Amino acid sequence: MNHADAYAGLMAHLRQTAALSGVAGLLNWDQEAVMPPGGAEQRAEQAGAMSAVLHERRSDPRIAEWLDAIDPASLDDAGRANVREARRYHDHAVMIPKELAEATAKATARAHRLWAQARADDDVPAFLPALTEIIGLVRERAQFVAADGQSSYDALLDEFEPGTSASEISAIFARLRAGLTELRQRIADKPREIPTLTGSFARAGQLALAEELAKRFGYDEQSGRIDLVVHPFCSGTRGDVRITTRVDEADPFNCLYSTVHETGHALYEQGLDPALAWQPAGNHVSMGVHESQSRFCENQIGRSRAFCGWLYPRMVDAFGDFGIADADTFYATVNRVAPGYIRTEADEVHYNLHIMLRFELEQALIAGHLAPADLEAAWNDRFAADFGVAVDKPSNGVLQDVHWSAGLFGYFPTYTLGNIYAGCLDAAMRRDLGDVDTEIAGGDTTRPIAWMREKIHRPGAIHLPVELITRATGSAPTEQPLLDYLNAKFGALYDL
Amino acid sequence: MNHADAYAGLMAHLRQTAALSGVAGLLNWDQEAVMPPGGAEQRAEQAGAMSAVLHERRSDPRIAEWLDAIDPASLDDAGRANVREARRYHDHAVMIPKELAEATAKATARAHRLWAQARADDDVPAFLPALTEIIGLVRERAQFVAADGQSSYDALLDEFEPGTSASEISAIFARLRAGLTELRQRIADKPREIPTLTGSFARAGQLALAEELAKRFGYDEQSGRIDLVVHPFCSGTRGDVRITTRVDEADPFNCLYSTVHETGHALYEQGLDPALAWQPAGNHVSMGVHESQSRFCENQIGRSRAFCGWLYPRMVDAFGDFGIADADTFYATVNRVAPGYIRTEADEVHYNLHIMLRFELEQALIAGHLAPADLEAAWNDRFAADFGVAVDKPSNGVLQDVHWSAGLFGYFPTYTLGNIYAGCLDAAMRRDLGDVDTEIAGGDTTRPIAWMREKIHRPGAIHLPVELITRATGSAPTEQPLLDYLNAKFGALYDL
Repeated sequence: MNHADAYAGLMAHLRQTAALSGVAGLLNWDQEAVMPPGGAEQRAEQAGAMSAVLHERRSDPRIAEWLDAIDPASLDDAGRANVREARRYHDHAVMIPKELAEATAKATARAHRLWAQARADDDVPAFLPALTEIIGLVRERAQFVAADGQSSYDALLDEFEPGTSASEISAIFARLRAGLTELRQRIADKPREIPTLTGSFARAGQLALAEELAKRFGYDEQSGRIDLVVHPFCSGTRGDVRITTRVDEADPFNCLYSTVHETGHALYEQGLDPALAWQPAGNHVSMGVHESQSRFCENQIGRSRAFCGWLYPRMVDAFGDFGIADADTFYATVNRVAPGYIRTEADEVHYNLHIMLRFELEQALIAGHLAPADLEAAWNDRFAADFGVAVDKPSNGVLQDVHWSAGLFGYFPTYTLGNIYAGCLDAAMRRDLGDVDTEIAGGDTTRPIAWMREKIHRPGAIHLPVELITRATGSAPTEQPLLDYLNAKFGALYDL
Repeated sequence: MNHADAYAGLMAHLRQTAALSGVAGLLNWDQEAVMPPGGAEQRAEQAGAMSAVLHERRSDPRIAEWLDAIDPASLDDAGRANVREARRYHDHAVMIPKELAEATAKATARAHRLWAQARADDDVPAFLPALTEIIGLVRERAQFVAADGQSSYDALLDEFEPGTSASEISAIFARLRAGLTELRQRIADKPREIPTLTGSFARAGQLALAEELAKRFGYDEQSGRIDLVVHPFCSGTRGDVRITTRVDEADPFNCLYSTVHETGHALYEQGLDPALAWQPAGNHVSMGVHESQSRFCENQIGRSRAFCGWLYPRMVDAFGDFGIADADTFYATVNRVAPGYIRTEADEVHYNLHIMLRFELEQALIAGHLAPADLEAAWNDRFAADFGVAVDKPSNGVLQDVHWSAGLFGYFPTYTLGNIYAGCLDAAMRRDLGDVDTEIAGGDTTRPIAWMREKIHRPGAIHLPVELITRATGSAPTEQPLLDYLNAKFGALYDL
């Protein structure tokens, strides 16, 4: 087989696999957003069947033949990325037995239902058998895909953040942790009374404002939709990117900022290069980079003083006088630092401490150093030590996140990597564009988002994360820009 | 291979195929009910990929080996039905080239979008190229699957109503047509002033009443959901059966009776034997029998004097005084006979004339006796002759139905077969149960639906349609019970 035929054969095969992978993603969106309860058993069977189909396609022996016949030197950067990603998926698929992939898909579909019920009932034992089964399946999977000398956890991590390892992450996390702990202590030493929201915020008003927020950040609603779920997420790519949110009438920030967060994810998917559609090179590159986009929108823009100045009068329009006197106080309320139980509601100072807790616990679970039956106690001990308060109920603790029920181990650290990348990108964007706060204060995010589109969205997966961030910002990613940003922001807010 | 291993292998294979087929069905529901416009191109690719996967599974050469090794004599009725259906699907799949199946899936996904736009714009020429492409693909498909001496149209028909032919249908339709024409003439000769609905009926009230109607007929909302679409349909099976409806504020009957109609379809799917889940024998047996369930709920129960007596005060509760004085007048309004453009809004006397028009035109299109470019004129000529009025715009004529854009040729006659079966089943149910009108007048449909569940839903596809109806009613299906029912109902209503 010659190079050109091999590359064409591979690309046609990948195109159909991408379409089927999109179908599997839609099954998941449907399950979370619209599926009736009676559909759960059937859906487990469907998810298992789709997983088997995808596994079979990705382990197709023709892929190895095509890859052997392709000459990477005669390809451009995108072509080489296609080959890189095709090889990664093929290697994994060949290493993971079809039966294991199918069993995992079925088990996670069932576990999701059990987790949702256990969370509603605050009943950890009801979820433990399912969690134990999933950890067993994930460990088995990791053992199959791990390279020589690679730990099981690193093998899992590679699926979400290619090109990194737990030890590299631990090093950068340790430095970040030191900086965050120091900042948190300075805030604790100089308390400031910042009001919280009280009263009730009508559901319809929250949803209307959430939709307006999505549009303000450039979300194309003709290529997506917004639905309500238990745990918000973003699903799909390019012409069909669906975001989800939730409503708590006592806490509108939950709905509004999770909408902005998911909008950030959606912008990445909607902004991928159309010329690279159906090619691995045209996909998002990693979950960490994905999270950098959501957190940049949510925090660096959405929780900025400038944007809060735009949002405050809209809140007053939507809900009337809600007890916050002015935009400065509103900005402080939005950014109020306080230890809380729920990761997705955490302030920017505490958020990454939540992640580090999960990162360490899941490494121990996968290494077999922590038994699932001991997980709740380990979580509660660690939380009390890190946050200074005791977990009051499992839905505020170990049952709060969907990830483990979905078999997602190695995913949590990408959240903090995303925050680190967002810090790097924000600093570079402000350096490149000069003052953007004036326009953000007017509700106009066009220039920052266009910068992100050019630097991050369009390049897709052509370069691996560290290379992508380096090209976008001019230097390799470190935790320092994030710490500088947090120190400046909270230093001013708490008059440190 | 021995019989037991072969049968087990076949059943495991069919189970996964059924799961994937359910996924393909969900893609379609999603496209009609919730997909954003920007998703259309991607969806065409996904539908094509799923179609290719299903085609590959159904043409798997192992199926032929299993079928050869199975001894039908050692199977029960359900087992023999599984073998019968497996053979039918396998034969079709082997006969239809994969490329043709995939091209058809892509073309119909595109055509659906063009049809919806053309219908909105009343623009037949905008839809003609897509329609022409689809007719070409469907004819090609029919030529591949037709048995020796079988016409292309009969080959298509067999996919929706196994075990019948256009000539058999034409014979029964001819007798039905004579009876309907005679009844229509008697009504025309003895006009009665029956009021129509005027004014506006609030959307929310219609949707609330539609949901109540679905429940009254026994629809399990824990195993389904109700959404809005352009052209209502029912999707899914067993634990996840979704119905759809539409709202016209000037005509609440559109929403309410299409909801009851789709509920009838949903009851069939929700009522299939759980012991036969994932087996072909546990599926619905044909589109004609499916339609018998929807029309039985819609007409024989939903448009009966008894049920109208229950519905009338609920309409007054929902919408206030809407200009209809009493339940008798309401019953007459619900059943008012008048030639109309739209099939789905037609009264019971005219409905089957709409179907016969389509049945004849689509036979001519598939036989090549009618060019797509001449279809609109042929439709309009035939409509003027049959209904005595001229079509005023394409959305009231040739563009009104979704079917042809979806490649569904051979489907229309199953609607009238469904009405014929519903007539047979209604007569047998009333013979078996005695008076049911008293309970129906109280909004209680439990006994009639339970009768249907036992006679039609549970048996699934164990027996072919004619055998199923014969077992349920005690005699082979004919048009006579339907004509008797219509003559009695409209004879009384129009005092003939």
